[in-house]
Amino acid sequence: MKRIKLVVAYDGTNYCGWQIQPNDVTVEKVLNDKLTKLLGEEIKIIGASRTDSGVHALGNVAVFDTNSTIPGDRFSYALNTLLPEDIRVQESYEVDQGFHPRHCDTKKTYEYKILNRQFPLPSKRFDTYFFPYSLDIAKMQDAAKYLVGEHDFKSFCSARTQTETTIRTIYSVDVSRSEDVVSIKVTGNGFLYNMVRIIAGTLIQAGTGHYEPLKVNAVLESNDRTLAGPTAPPEGLTLVEIQYL
Amino acid sequence: MKRIKLVVAYDGTNYCGWQIQPNDVTVEKVLNDKLTKLLGEEIKIIGASRTDSGVHALGNVAVFDTNSTIPGDRFSYALNTLLPEDIRVQESYEVDQGFHPRHCDTKKTYEYKILNRQFPLPSKRFDTYFFPYSLDIAKMQDAAKYLVGEHDFKSFCSARTQTETTIRTIYSVDVSRSEDVVSIKVTGNGFLYNMVRIIAGTLIQAGTGHYEPLKVNAVLESNDRTLAGPTAPPEGLTLVEIQYL
Repeated sequence: MKRIKLVVAYDGTNYCGWQIQPNDVTVEKVLNDKLTKLLGEEIKIIGASRTDSGVHALGNVAVFDTNSTIPGDRFSYALNTLLPEDIRVQESYEVDQGFHPRHCDTKKTYEYKILNRQFPLPSKRFDTYFFPYSLDIAKMQDAAKYLVGEHDFKSFCSARTQTETTIRTIYSVDVSRSEDVVSIKVTGNGFLYNMVRIIAGTLIQAGTGHYEPLKVNAVLESNDRTLAGPTAPPEGLTLVEIQYL
Repeated sequence: MKRIKLVVAYDGTNYCGWQIQPNDVTVEKVLNDKLTKLLGEEIKIIGASRTDSGVHALGNVAVFDTNSTIPGDRFSYALNTLLPEDIRVQESYEVDQGFHPRHCDTKKTYEYKILNRQFPLPSKRFDTYFFPYSLDIAKMQDAAKYLVGEHDFKSFCSARTQTETTIRTIYSVDVSRSEDVVSIKVTGNGFLYNMVRIIAGTLIQAGTGHYEPLKVNAVLESNDRTLAGPTAPPEGLTLVEIQYL
């Protein structure tokens, strides 16, 4: 028996998120089905990050155990021949039997992309949030710096969050513009339910001038979700990378 | 009666190209149907560039005549509310009744994008051609420079081309890499059938080392289509811009 780690990219547009749910097509379900078909043994993967419905990934992580004799690095090729084209394994290799993708210290990086122009662009409709109003990037950058560090992010998580603590550390929040795409890149040691999308929604409020940048600090200190901005829609969000420390 | 010019972006993945054909869904057909619905008069647009099945555009151009009192710049907003999300008007305005989008001197710019990495990326599957083998950008740039200028491009067009002359002027061919995307940007006064895709297929041969860069010059002088590289697939190609001179 060996444990295989997969790094998985997907376009989440047509999935009800990562995690298996009865009657819904999820990324986890598709991976389980294809691995089970490939290996002839029932496979149940364990994922690192349960991305929401409509959210994308460049590098989500999963592991599974198998008796297969296929070398670790060949699973990516074999699995990609079976997967639909909106899911592609980027890397596969054997890891220690004790490696668990959720019970480890990690740095996770998410990117939220905003298509900021007069009209939508068909080529960017699946992985950006279209927002036609003017955004002041300097103000968004100002607002973002209050989020960096160890904080209680209770104001920045959905009421549906179930967790022992809402304290997390954010290492960086980088806001930049490249032509008509505004990118918010957030790296942290962990994220609460909807946290990156609420950060994006709040920074957009700072960018339009609706919030003064300093208000983000007040929102953080209030521990009150209703003071933060709205949850930005899922299509703009991509889980870029999970680094195991 | 006034003439309105539209600048149109589309993801060509789900269309049998621009031009109306019986029994096929084309971009021209969708625009005609939606304009006819919007204006209550039968509209037949005239397009600038008949892009092929599966080819995309950021700025194709079309005109139509109407008795409508809608101001020229409002057609983009009105039409976008009716169009499917893979077609979006980027600009609309009134032009001279005599303006014809094909009977004018133009500079057209196409971009061919190659996703050059080990595994496909779901987020780039619709507008890049996935090519996993190593590409030498310097060799592609070397090869590209032979194409610049006024030449007979008979070797670089499909045998299906129907045209009085195969002489065209290419102003620039820029080959560059940004992370894992190799871009070939070609600007010229006009393009023959499949010309940009055959240029892309030929430059890929130069990039892999299959052709020496100098061979591109020999191919050009041969006037023989069979000596050029294969026609690269449509998904990598985007009509970026049509400039009216």
